[in-house]
Amino acid sequence: MNPTWLEQACLPLNNDIMIQATKHQTQLTKPPGALGQLEEIAIKLAAMQSKKLPEVNTVQITVFAGDHGIANQGVSAFPQAVTVEMIKNFSRGGAAINVLAKMNNAQLDVVNLGTAFPADNLDGVIDKSISDGTKDFSQQAAMSEEECMTALSVGAEIIDTAYDNKTDLFIAGEMGIANTSSATAIACALLNKKAEELVGPGTGLDKDGISRKADVINNALSLHNVSKDDPVKILETFGGFEIAAIVGSYIHCAQLGIPVLIDGFISSIAALLSVKIKPCVKDWFIFAHVSAEPGHKIIMQALNTKPLLDLGMRLGEGSGAAVAIPLIKAACTLHSQMATFVEAGVSEKSA
Amino acid sequence: MNPTWLEQACLPLNNDIMIQATKHQTQLTKPPGALGQLEEIAIKLAAMQSKKLPEVNTVQITVFAGDHGIANQGVSAFPQAVTVEMIKNFSRGGAAINVLAKMNNAQLDVVNLGTAFPADNLDGVIDKSISDGTKDFSQQAAMSEEECMTALSVGAEIIDTAYDNKTDLFIAGEMGIANTSSATAIACALLNKKAEELVGPGTGLDKDGISRKADVINNALSLHNVSKDDPVKILETFGGFEIAAIVGSYIHCAQLGIPVLIDGFISSIAALLSVKIKPCVKDWFIFAHVSAEPGHKIIMQALNTKPLLDLGMRLGEGSGAAVAIPLIKAACTLHSQMATFVEAGVSEKSA
Repeated sequence: MNPTWLEQACLPLNNDIMIQATKHQTQLTKPPGALGQLEEIAIKLAAMQSKKLPEVNTVQITVFAGDHGIANQGVSAFPQAVTVEMIKNFSRGGAAINVLAKMNNAQLDVVNLGTAFPADNLDGVIDKSISDGTKDFSQQAAMSEEECMTALSVGAEIIDTAYDNKTDLFIAGEMGIANTSSATAIACALLNKKAEELVGPGTGLDKDGISRKADVINNALSLHNVSKDDPVKILETFGGFEIAAIVGSYIHCAQLGIPVLIDGFISSIAALLSVKIKPCVKDWFIFAHVSAEPGHKIIMQALNTKPLLDLGMRLGEGSGAAVAIPLIKAACTLHSQMATFVEAGVSEKSA
Repeated sequence: MNPTWLEQACLPLNNDIMIQATKHQTQLTKPPGALGQLEEIAIKLAAMQSKKLPEVNTVQITVFAGDHGIANQGVSAFPQAVTVEMIKNFSRGGAAINVLAKMNNAQLDVVNLGTAFPADNLDGVIDKSISDGTKDFSQQAAMSEEECMTALSVGAEIIDTAYDNKTDLFIAGEMGIANTSSATAIACALLNKKAEELVGPGTGLDKDGISRKADVINNALSLHNVSKDDPVKILETFGGFEIAAIVGSYIHCAQLGIPVLIDGFISSIAALLSVKIKPCVKDWFIFAHVSAEPGHKIIMQALNTKPLLDLGMRLGEGSGAAVAIPLIKAACTLHSQMATFVEAGVSEKSA
């Protein structure tokens, strides 16, 4: 991939179409605004797709997976072997995201950015291993500059393919034991916060475990002392390969004009990081759900957004976004298939 | 219908199956609890259906429609003619609930309980007219005791048919200009509240309109002074025919063992009224969404429930519940199709 891809501008939303879609909504047989966020989604997708009546037929879900050196510090409730075990589970179709992708007729790919244990050749898993996981960021930077750029580009390449496949909506998922620690450190560095403001149980730490995780993150933040205005450096220092790949995928979606449905805690921090690198990327985001991971609400505030769902989910893999796919489809279908007041002969609101 | 139907007991949930389903959830390849409310829904449906792996294949949506004498008091933003116009729109497939029913492969029926303007014979509309709308409850009781019992029984009859059709999930919708006034008066009477605590814009009243609506309701509450412990009398006094039919449908679902997905403001007040008549009915409810109608949050508190969605919707017709159908299906499918830790060879959480 040409290394200058990161410099390319975002595709702008189509403002004329947005105005037309907004007017169309007021003509449908319902009180104005009565479909709430579903109206906003339809109008936003119209502006993204440059179509007054937007459609979401082809949905691509890519789960980016990788291991984290920081797992050595005992910051996860699950052993590190689970990253590869779950990649195998994705390959065999047994994980939540497999079930949800199938239900929603979405294309599902898994990209392995590098795991601590061997993953072998697996059906449906694209091998893009950079190394056997990132370095332990409590001791040193997680990645080199080159590794970070490679991981970003892997994400962008996935989007080149998604674009060729005429993808209407892209979802990134992630798998990587200890990646809530990596994501939390990134968010703390970007937002200039202490770990205790953002840290949570991840896959299931108890109170002592959360406290230990916060200490590990705070110590690492002090050790590296990266400027909040250098998001790429923050990514190199604390990031996982899979988080960098998600960032690359989000930025490239905005460059090529593919709407993105953002999943939970990790994905939202990747979204925040993308926006810090390139603010226009945010125009291409729809936020799917509020994670039960407590820090997620702060990330949503930083991005000034109200996600569609709040179901207490905290699984990752893209699962929260996949659960929201039918809402996006409902928004489009209501927008395009409901009768107008004139067509239906229904009286409008009194003056 | 045998008039003693209202006295029949509710079917109890299957507690043994609930325990089995709860255990099954802990064996799936995800951190325990990581699917949030979707896990609770799957477990609840298992107990309702007496199946460890519940299924939602056959969904029935019935929109109950009727006119309200209270519309004469200028309590709605839309003219009364819209009730029949929207029934025609349902018949022709142009309304939001038509689009959502089709998307979700749900059976959609419309039941006309009585409108102020003639509705003629319409495809897909079951004529159960009781009269040309209820009486104006600012002057007199909305219904006679007999009319109320008839409307309740219409709802129950619909459920007898749904039961014969092996319905896995039932949704009631409603259409009736001024029915937020009727529902608000019912809720105020049941919860011993002033109208200003529960009243809202309905289809789009402005501030003065809302204030006028509150005055009309408060005056009617004083005029009739019905005991909060007599829910059937409250229904007769303030109810719409369609609200009574929904109450009848909910109670009969609990008697026959059909899970109910509750829509927004009007439907939730019908749910509250059902529970006041027969507390065990509540076991059969799943609450779909929080309506943008401001009083809905108080109704959800009174029912001690947290609905699945909060999308700012306020359309009625069953539309909020219909938008939630895919979440219910996702809950069941994840529960039944995800691999277990043993099947997938994935390590469990560390001790």
